[in-house]
Amino acid sequence: MSATLTLADIRAAHARIADKIHRTPVLTSATLDALCRAQLFFKCENFQKIGAFKARGATNAVFALTDAEAANGVATHSSGNHAAALARAARLRGIPAHIVMPSNAPKTKIESVRRNGGFIVFCEPTLLAREAACAKIIAETAARLVHPFDDYAVMAGQGTATLELLEQAPDLDLIIVPVGGGGLLCGTAVAAKGARPGIRVIAAEPAGADDAARSVAAGRLIPLGQAATIADGLRTSLSARTFPLIQQKVDGIVTVSEESIVAAMRRIWEVLKIIIEPSCAVPYAAIMEGKIDVSGKRVGIILTGGNVDLDALPWLVK
Amino acid sequence: MSATLTLADIRAAHARIADKIHRTPVLTSATLDALCRAQLFFKCENFQKIGAFKARGATNAVFALTDAEAANGVATHSSGNHAAALARAARLRGIPAHIVMPSNAPKTKIESVRRNGGFIVFCEPTLLAREAACAKIIAETAARLVHPFDDYAVMAGQGTATLELLEQAPDLDLIIVPVGGGGLLCGTAVAAKGARPGIRVIAAEPAGADDAARSVAAGRLIPLGQAATIADGLRTSLSARTFPLIQQKVDGIVTVSEESIVAAMRRIWEVLKIIIEPSCAVPYAAIMEGKIDVSGKRVGIILTGGNVDLDALPWLVK
Repeated sequence: MSATLTLADIRAAHARIADKIHRTPVLTSATLDALCRAQLFFKCENFQKIGAFKARGATNAVFALTDAEAANGVATHSSGNHAAALARAARLRGIPAHIVMPSNAPKTKIESVRRNGGFIVFCEPTLLAREAACAKIIAETAARLVHPFDDYAVMAGQGTATLELLEQAPDLDLIIVPVGGGGLLCGTAVAAKGARPGIRVIAAEPAGADDAARSVAAGRLIPLGQAATIADGLRTSLSARTFPLIQQKVDGIVTVSEESIVAAMRRIWEVLKIIIEPSCAVPYAAIMEGKIDVSGKRVGIILTGGNVDLDALPWLVK
Repeated sequence: MSATLTLADIRAAHARIADKIHRTPVLTSATLDALCRAQLFFKCENFQKIGAFKARGATNAVFALTDAEAANGVATHSSGNHAAALARAARLRGIPAHIVMPSNAPKTKIESVRRNGGFIVFCEPTLLAREAACAKIIAETAARLVHPFDDYAVMAGQGTATLELLEQAPDLDLIIVPVGGGGLLCGTAVAAKGARPGIRVIAAEPAGADDAARSVAAGRLIPLGQAATIADGLRTSLSARTFPLIQQKVDGIVTVSEESIVAAMRRIWEVLKIIIEPSCAVPYAAIMEGKIDVSGKRVGIILTGGNVDLDALPWLVK
């Protein structure tokens, strides 16, 4: 692993994890294509192990460790999917996983960590509280930190979804992904532009958590304050490692409203017949809002996850 | 087309419709496999055109017509998915489709017929009223009846899902499908046993609409009285053409409770991250209830459809 992220890292990650993850299908829909006059290719990481692309990055990070590095287990803080992904990867490797979760993490994500044998410590839902709780655990256990995104091995794993997508849907003009901490975005951009020069990569984020758009516009990392979005996976700031890569590699960042996120989520449920979580609907929300010119293009969309509380659907809970 | 249903008919149907339907993916889940100690292969016809396997049968029936037979369009009565499927197939062929629907058909299915340009006539939700309304339309328009299941061309089309499944999931021991009118069941059984002698085919139906189980047990066709099931696609009786084929070809019919149907539907949403309608959950409900011995076996399950009213989910509506 180099001191940045390269296509070679992502290819090595894919070789390392291919037998531990799903090669997820790509779905298409004539109905959705007609609505935006484009060809959309949905890479279904909601079908991935633990229900999210995060299985890729966590698995790569855990299996890239030497035996000595892995000896005391791994630790992380996460709003949910990375937590379950790290617990699963640690279980596969036979080491403990210590997971700090915010107290408002969705029930379904907490259960997923438990099912995978992770040890959970709850904390206040702020980045400071999460980092402090995680530091304490690492001091006590000597576990190895696997950050949810500020880690090149994690980013390399996330980029493997794009390697598959480029094979499954040749000649894409554009890939759209959501951005929270930026791990998926960096992995996607490095994989896509390395393997297929000329392809564009656009990120979409909630207007209520628009630190990435503001950071890129300002040319400096502006941390997210209080997030105001249903997209619980995107309530995170960019990091020291993800922000510079995003500045170099990403062609644009657009923001979307909460209403669009819910409408996009519902439309994908209805038309594609798949369960996606709110964070996952953000790229398609950007298309619905007309924020990205997709007309006549072949567009890849990474559907990031499908972990939703089925008792609390956003169009039914007012 | 012979005066019964053969594997050759189903292969011919597949060649006829392959460019007009989706070759749907097969999903697997380590979580669901562990729960029943079997290997389950879910053929995702909920991702099929119009959201249900019915696209296969209707498309085959419409495109098997001669130009003279097709000249005055087609007509049918259907609780929903066959209606949309026939409307779509007629649109592809450029002929009118006259659709009789029961007044209690789900809103999403009515909209799907409208979107596909079908002409809808509503009637009382009884088989008699449906058949009378359909006969009237045919008398007026000289349209060709495409029955939802009592038609060998329709059954042949439905059987094409199994041809694909047998390729996608080799060496299956068993296939489980729901039974309503029996079109899918006949197509599945003839395809599976023709292509792979020794395979078993089991049907599952709601205890509240158990005419198939009762008919097979009695050795004569017992029509369904008042159906009492959430599985709206299965509120139909077997027919003169499906019943004898079921007697010859099907290895067993099991029934499941309404509670199990809802629990199975919810578990598939949660674990597979896909939208399935209640009728579609019936085979997995039979596994959850322990009604079918799947232990150690490779089991194909045809997920029949995903057309659900997202405002009225059964675990939220009391």
